[in-house]
Amino acid sequence: MTHHRDTAMYGDIKLFSGTACPDLASEIAQYLGTPLSGRDIIKFPNENIFVRLHGSARGQDVYVVQTTSPPVSDNLMELLITIQTLKLDSAGRITVVVPYLCYARSDKKDQPRVPITARLIADMIEVAGADRYITMDLHAGQIQGFFSIPGDVLTAFHIVSDYFLGIRRRLKEPVIVTADLGFAKKGRNFAAKIGTTMAFIEKRRTGNDANAQAMTVIGDVNDKDVIIVDDEVDTGGSVAQAVEIVKEHGARNVYLSFVHPVLSHPAVERLKNLPIKEIIMTNTIPLPPEKRLPNMRVLSVAPLLGEVIKRAHEGRSVGEMFNE
Amino acid sequence: MTHHRDTAMYGDIKLFSGTACPDLASEIAQYLGTPLSGRDIIKFPNENIFVRLHGSARGQDVYVVQTTSPPVSDNLMELLITIQTLKLDSAGRITVVVPYLCYARSDKKDQPRVPITARLIADMIEVAGADRYITMDLHAGQIQGFFSIPGDVLTAFHIVSDYFLGIRRRLKEPVIVTADLGFAKKGRNFAAKIGTTMAFIEKRRTGNDANAQAMTVIGDVNDKDVIIVDDEVDTGGSVAQAVEIVKEHGARNVYLSFVHPVLSHPAVERLKNLPIKEIIMTNTIPLPPEKRLPNMRVLSVAPLLGEVIKRAHEGRSVGEMFNE
Amino acid sequence: MTHHRDTAMYGDIKLFSGTACPDLASEIAQYLGTPLSGRDIIKFPNENIFVRLHGSARGQDVYVVQTTSPPVSDNLMELLITIQTLKLDSAGRITVVVPYLCYARSDKKDQPRVPITARLIADMIEVAGADRYITMDLHAGQIQGFFSIPGDVLTAFHIVSDYFLGIRRRLKEPVIVTADLGFAKKGRNFAAKIGTTMAFIEKRRTGNDANAQAMTVIGDVNDKDVIIVDDEVDTGGSVAQAVEIVKEHGARNVYLSFVHPVLSHPAVERLKNLPIKEIIMTNTIPLPPEKRLPNMRVLSVAPLLGEVIKRAHEGRSVGEMFNE
Amino acid sequence: MTHHRDTAMYGDIKLFSGTACPDLASEIAQYLGTPLSGRDIIKFPNENIFVRLHGSARGQDVYVVQTTSPPVSDNLMELLITIQTLKLDSAGRITVVVPYLCYARSDKKDQPRVPITARLIADMIEVAGADRYITMDLHAGQIQGFFSIPGDVLTAFHIVSDYFLGIRRRLKEPVIVTADLGFAKKGRNFAAKIGTTMAFIEKRRTGNDANAQAMTVIGDVNDKDVIIVDDEVDTGGSVAQAVEIVKEHGARNVYLSFVHPVLSHPAVERLKNLPIKEIIMTNTIPLPPEKRLPNMRVLSVAPLLGEVIKRAHEGRSVGEMFNE
Amino acid sequence: MTHHRDTAMYGDIKLFSGTACPDLASEIAQYLGTPLSGRDIIKFPNENIFVRLHGSARGQDVYVVQTTSPPVSDNLMELLITIQTLKLDSAGRITVVVPYLCYARSDKKDQPRVPITARLIADMIEVAGADRYITMDLHAGQIQGFFSIPGDVLTAFHIVSDYFLGIRRRLKEPVIVTADLGFAKKGRNFAAKIGTTMAFIEKRRTGNDANAQAMTVIGDVNDKDVIIVDDEVDTGGSVAQAVEIVKEHGARNVYLSFVHPVLSHPAVERLKNLPIKEIIMTNTIPLPPEKRLPNMRVLSVAPLLGEVIKRAHEGRSVGEMFNE
Amino acid sequence: MTHHRDTAMYGDIKLFSGTACPDLASEIAQYLGTPLSGRDIIKFPNENIFVRLHGSARGQDVYVVQTTSPPVSDNLMELLITIQTLKLDSAGRITVVVPYLCYARSDKKDQPRVPITARLIADMIEVAGADRYITMDLHAGQIQGFFSIPGDVLTAFHIVSDYFLGIRRRLKEPVIVTADLGFAKKGRNFAAKIGTTMAFIEKRRTGNDANAQAMTVIGDVNDKDVIIVDDEVDTGGSVAQAVEIVKEHGARNVYLSFVHPVLSHPAVERLKNLPIKEIIMTNTIPLPPEKRLPNMRVLSVAPLLGEVIKRAHEGRSVGEMFNE
Repeated sequence: MTHHRDTAMYGDIKLFSGTACPDLASEIAQYLGTPLSGRDIIKFPNENIFVRLHGSARGQDVYVVQTTSPPVSDNLMELLITIQTLKLDSAGRITVVVPYLCYARSDKKDQPRVPITARLIADMIEVAGADRYITMDLHAGQIQGFFSIPGDVLTAFHIVSDYFLGIRRRLKEPVIVTADLGFAKKGRNFAAKIGTTMAFIEKRRTGNDANAQAMTVIGDVNDKDVIIVDDEVDTGGSVAQAVEIVKEHGARNVYLSFVHPVLSHPAVERLKNLPIKEIIMTNTIPLPPEKRLPNMRVLSVAPLLGEVIKRAHEGRSVGEMFNE
Repeated sequence: MTHHRDTAMYGDIKLFSGTACPDLASEIAQYLGTPLSGRDIIKFPNENIFVRLHGSARGQDVYVVQTTSPPVSDNLMELLITIQTLKLDSAGRITVVVPYLCYARSDKKDQPRVPITARLIADMIEVAGADRYITMDLHAGQIQGFFSIPGDVLTAFHIVSDYFLGIRRRLKEPVIVTADLGFAKKGRNFAAKIGTTMAFIEKRRTGNDANAQAMTVIGDVNDKDVIIVDDEVDTGGSVAQAVEIVKEHGARNVYLSFVHPVLSHPAVERLKNLPIKEIIMTNTIPLPPEKRLPNMRVLSVAPLLGEVIKRAHEGRSVGEMFNE
Repeated sequence: MTHHRDTAMYGDIKLFSGTACPDLASEIAQYLGTPLSGRDIIKFPNENIFVRLHGSARGQDVYVVQTTSPPVSDNLMELLITIQTLKLDSAGRITVVVPYLCYARSDKKDQPRVPITARLIADMIEVAGADRYITMDLHAGQIQGFFSIPGDVLTAFHIVSDYFLGIRRRLKEPVIVTADLGFAKKGRNFAAKIGTTMAFIEKRRTGNDANAQAMTVIGDVNDKDVIIVDDEVDTGGSVAQAVEIVKEHGARNVYLSFVHPVLSHPAVERLKNLPIKEIIMTNTIPLPPEKRLPNMRVLSVAPLLGEVIKRAHEGRSVGEMFNE
Repeated sequence: MTHHRDTAMYGDIKLFSGTACPDLASEIAQYLGTPLSGRDIIKFPNENIFVRLHGSARGQDVYVVQTTSPPVSDNLMELLITIQTLKLDSAGRITVVVPYLCYARSDKKDQPRVPITARLIADMIEVAGADRYITMDLHAGQIQGFFSIPGDVLTAFHIVSDYFLGIRRRLKEPVIVTADLGFAKKGRNFAAKIGTTMAFIEKRRTGNDANAQAMTVIGDVNDKDVIIVDDEVDTGGSVAQAVEIVKEHGARNVYLSFVHPVLSHPAVERLKNLPIKEIIMTNTIPLPPEKRLPNMRVLSVAPLLGEVIKRAHEGRSVGEMFNE
Repeated sequence: MTHHRDTAMYGDIKLFSGTACPDLASEIAQYLGTPLSGRDIIKFPNENIFVRLHGSARGQDVYVVQTTSPPVSDNLMELLITIQTLKLDSAGRITVVVPYLCYARSDKKDQPRVPITARLIADMIEVAGADRYITMDLHAGQIQGFFSIPGDVLTAFHIVSDYFLGIRRRLKEPVIVTADLGFAKKGRNFAAKIGTTMAFIEKRRTGNDANAQAMTVIGDVNDKDVIIVDDEVDTGGSVAQAVEIVKEHGARNVYLSFVHPVLSHPAVERLKNLPIKEIIMTNTIPLPPEKRLPNMRVLSVAPLLGEVIKRAHEGRSVGEMFNE
Repeated sequence: MTHHRDTAMYGDIKLFSGTACPDLASEIAQYLGTPLSGRDIIKFPNENIFVRLHGSARGQDVYVVQTTSPPVSDNLMELLITIQTLKLDSAGRITVVVPYLCYARSDKKDQPRVPITARLIADMIEVAGADRYITMDLHAGQIQGFFSIPGDVLTAFHIVSDYFLGIRRRLKEPVIVTADLGFAKKGRNFAAKIGTTMAFIEKRRTGNDANAQAMTVIGDVNDKDVIIVDDEVDTGGSVAQAVEIVKEHGARNVYLSFVHPVLSHPAVERLKNLPIKEIIMTNTIPLPPEKRLPNMRVLSVAPLLGEVIKRAHEGRSVGEMFNE
């Protein structure tokens, strides 16, 4: 009765970028063969942010690329204002592309009288007028349920683990180690894909002093190449402890692999001084030159995001990209 | 300028019970010193469920106790219809008390084209007219963020761990074991409170056959008393494997502790045949006589729920019950 | 300025079926020349229902066929979960096709402290994510106003009355009889179309005993062929009384005609023993073999639903199907 | 644990009246012993309606009495503007008291491409900010389901039927007649309460001419006192036909009883010329002197509305007023 | 990756008109080359308004032209009912075209306990089901922010000021005068475009008597041609005072220019007696023959509205019409 | 029937402060005789803001004082997170007290493709969970209509104008001057209260260069004391021009009066070098020592805000504070 249509259903594609990750946005634009649409983003002397689109987005299928790394509040406001501007300009469909979603660790009340800020962020994105969202490697997959709009939550797992598959021959008896028990399950997937064993670092408070922690390695790392995996590295404290303790337990080379290079102070100082062979990360957050260490390698998520945008625009399956 | 008021602010307290956990509801009523309010819940021959309140709930502070164990869909509908009935009867505030929240494991899209049913459940509870919710030991704490209404998510952790503290002297070098890596972090809290070490069971698919799994124990259980902890036991498959493997690794006595006795077929058959010394659970789901084994011990959550209802009604802190 | 477009506006058509009325769904698919889309619907041992779509519905014009006959709560949950799954998969437009809508008789508060469950059902369908609905012969047309999404409420009146027009010559002085005064107005339309007179059955409680009812026939049925018409037959009690009393008043042949074969226990037993010449119904609810009597005739609503889906997809008028 | 509180829970009661039914509002105020709160309602030369409250409604339990008889659109706007004014003034709770709800007959799509205006009215009342509604004798009880806020839908049935019980002795073999088959069921309740038989008027189009109707009386009215009952009289056409045909069929005295005296032109002219012994109605719509006929009797709904407001304010059951 | 599509994205265009400004609607239809779609709009004897569309709007891009001049409440209801009718008929997108938006002067609480009716109007338009709005020369631009749906707020400024540019040579030292300080900023734009100076009329209460006002002209008008500009003229009081005082201050010819000819009683009487050379206005509100004075000139906004509808339908920029 | 209640209706009052204006919050607390409630507000190294309340707010009437001056985005996020924290803690009612509301100048689309950020701010405050808001001297009063929750928009007009009344005798023929025509109307109220005349500064672009502006004074300032009034001073550019031009036109002493001391760079440098006798402002935004000039005088709005909070809590009229 019907035939497959060649053209997209939500108007032309239109790609906007905030100021948070311009390089990644350009890479995505290149992948899509679509130039970034012009817009002014101005911060007035009174710190109010102002957005003006150069051309009309009326009826078009718009994607806004903006990561929410520091300056977090400003980057978030920029995103929200851009969404509302597009909505008021009668855009056909607005998809926000947020490679790194801020506040993802504030995802539950694990003590009384605290916020669930990740839900607030989702609500703000929706109330501003977004129709869909695309993001990557949420701290907890459940954050998808904080949105009532549909979205694509992607993972750089394939990108990162493929890298280690590529250097697999060079590794001696590799073992996947997670520094955070909350990441244990994802660590197991990593181990399964590369075909390695696992070990865990158990971190426990001793007494009331929050800083006094006893660390143990559960599992065997002696004389093995250790790959410490996580979703993000913030100040690098846990990672530093993990590197030290696996070294103490006889680890050979230590690799560090994560998706989001938050790298808040003093992460880079810590990493600089640790005996890590290679640090693998992605560009969901831009890595400024002053944070770049010789042993860092940044893998790009642009082709992944670009392909997902392309498929979303054309109404094709995203899942089948991963043979799912 | 103001003084603390003695009386509650949302009208009188009124406690209703669905048909899913009448005993628990009665225990709560007893704790509160408030009789259960009368209502008819009828299932017509055409399977439509009908609710009628015996007395008016106009302006009152109403609590509806209903767990969502099997028959899940019927118990859920009963809950939703009761909420709407109360809303249309102009109740002052409606709090649902759902000791066990169904679909909590459908909390994220871990593959494409599947639902996040826990979010749907939250939406349904809200659209029916609930103002607040009280529930216990959610599979993932993030489910709190699925609700836009406030709620109290309680834990039976204290009840259950206190029990083991009470028999601590009888245990020989106890070690906490989690059968699911997703529960590793909560297991650690358990271990921290009782002052024990931990071990993990790693379960991994071997090849494409979902049933073929290689199991390992990471950590030491030899000649130790093992307490396997989890939030719920469904069909008992993981637990059975865990008991067997810790036994293979030399465990002495094995205890099993969990909050929600879902105990779907063939859980009871499995548990019956396992060398478990004691099975500790709560009454968030009623345990029918035919499922009751001699080594089972059911701890009641009624005082906890009753006290929280009392404080919610009086506008007092729930957090300080736990010195938080 | 514009021209009529050949192609549909909401992506390709995609037809899903729940498990409640698979035969009707297949007939509709056949009418449309579109295969049913693959999906898994699984009921886990803990009775949680799980849905997984085989292929992506991204951007497509999706129709979900699911009736809400017993098991009512499960069929409803299945429908709602499927809707949410489609929404989260970024379907372009989601239309639920519910030939028989449950709880339609719970459509007003005719006594204090009862629900209006039909409104709750509408709210649930909307909150799950449906954009439109198609249903048939609502108990009260006002239920359309319970939805804030648009819908097509169809009637099998033409299908059923055409049948009687077809056998008109064989009928002797037919008279339309309604067993429920609430159906009197629709009965009149039936009589008008076939060109017959009417009679009513007045049922009145005598005293406080709800079961003690005095029945009268208002109007003349003596030596006439009687067609008792209604929208549904539930347990068959009213119908049985109606048949008996028209027979007492001298009716010749008695026909029974209704749309929705709810046929709750003991409807079939009752119908089996009544002197009814022919029982006409539709397949808005599947009629299992064990309920099928020799004098039953099931008319299919599949062509009607199929044609409406086709027109809805193509953006053409549904009303003009009925010369309206 | 709690005791019944003496004071109301929603601040003090405050009663406002629009300009549509000032006498009824005053009667209600008198019943409650609460003066009407001062407000200006001005219609500017440009026909914009302006409302200003004389005193603050901050935190109070406000009731707005306004019927929606002609001028319908203006009375409705007045009501909506008053609601919003109260909301913006931070009223504690706003209940609209609309004795006669306009557009109640536009309650379903009985042909394609028409509105369901009654749902629109409900939506407008809600979006303006009302928390609850009170109304009377809705054309269809299902309209309750158009609101998502709770409400009390009252009936003047007791007031009106009590009147006929009071003159029962004077009536000779009274029979209840409904001029509209849609009112048949309610007519039966009337007959049941007074202990009489029933008859129906069947009105049917003959041919395509909408005005050419064949009328029949189904049931016996010969030499009996007939009480024609309905919920409202609009232009009086149906009623006039009903009176004539029952007279043709030998009726003795004819009484006419309805709740809402809409009495659009030329209702009064028609009623004036009909052989009706007594016309019973209520004051849900004011009856201006020029419409008043000698055989009209207006029963007041003020005590009923006043008592319901009182109970709603105090959080007491409304249902038990009717022994329900 | 994509190409610009030739066809519109929201189905075919469909233009409906209410009864408030049929001539303007026809002019727009002519501009678009699209006939007005048939509909019945009936006011029943009970003053309930009824709408029925002649043909289906299913999936189409619908524009409803209706101004909200007197009878304000009826015109507004007509608009809202038409919107809902279209929504329930499954229109693809509904844009209301309201050349003059009523209640725009009730846009803030400038005293306690008054409404913000313009917000209520926006809410009502949204709740009825409109997807977008088009309007002209709002009293305050901020009213755009009252809508959560997108819209195009157009101005007749170019139409009106172009007229004066056209007659510029005939004017002697023209000076723009605003009679209302709230219009001062817009007046400046007018002056800037025509290249003239400005003067202001300051109106101030003297004492408590609201009618006793001292008037001054701030700026020089002596022996100059004065153009008094405003957005609307209601009863004409301010304008009359302005004309008199500029004449007192030596003005030569006086022109009056405004967009919306509200012209409530006694505006026309006032204008008739004033020494005004020419009165320029638009047809956002129809000017009935009895209000037409010899010195009035009505400029049509139909081409502007038509072009904006065309562009909105085709998904093209509206802003670039004005080189913005 | 009821009596005025002594106690407040929304639980106890509870006052929280963000980090933006702690001194003002303390002053308000002092006025109320209520200590500020304890809370932690932490900015983590990754710039995520975290809030934790020291005590429960369950059921209480909470006021959150936070101005939204720079750092604007952070102060706003802090406010929103605090609101959500309170909502999730089941606060009884949440009122935000925002003395200076950011983005108030982004209140309409005065060019295509720009945001209405003030509406976005209102939406964010509502979606976070606020029930009411209190703010001061909005740039445009219409912003009230951006909120769908009720609020109190206060003005420091009385505070500021009273100051000038107090020094009235010292002023020689004072004249009120507005530097922005958009403030002309409010300027007139100022003039009316103090009993002075007015003058306006007309600022007009000359040619395309946005910086090239021709300035004129409309009205007489020669040898008079000039009070330049505005709602806020941002970078001070307009004010500097205004001071210069009135001086050029012979003004005697110049006073500057405004409510919100935004004072973005280089406002203070500009003000320092201008011949201004006195600069009057309020503390809606804190004035850090480095911005304080000798001729500045800061009037406190704390008593005003404190009194309004008190009345809002007690359910008493705010309007009557101003004899309205």
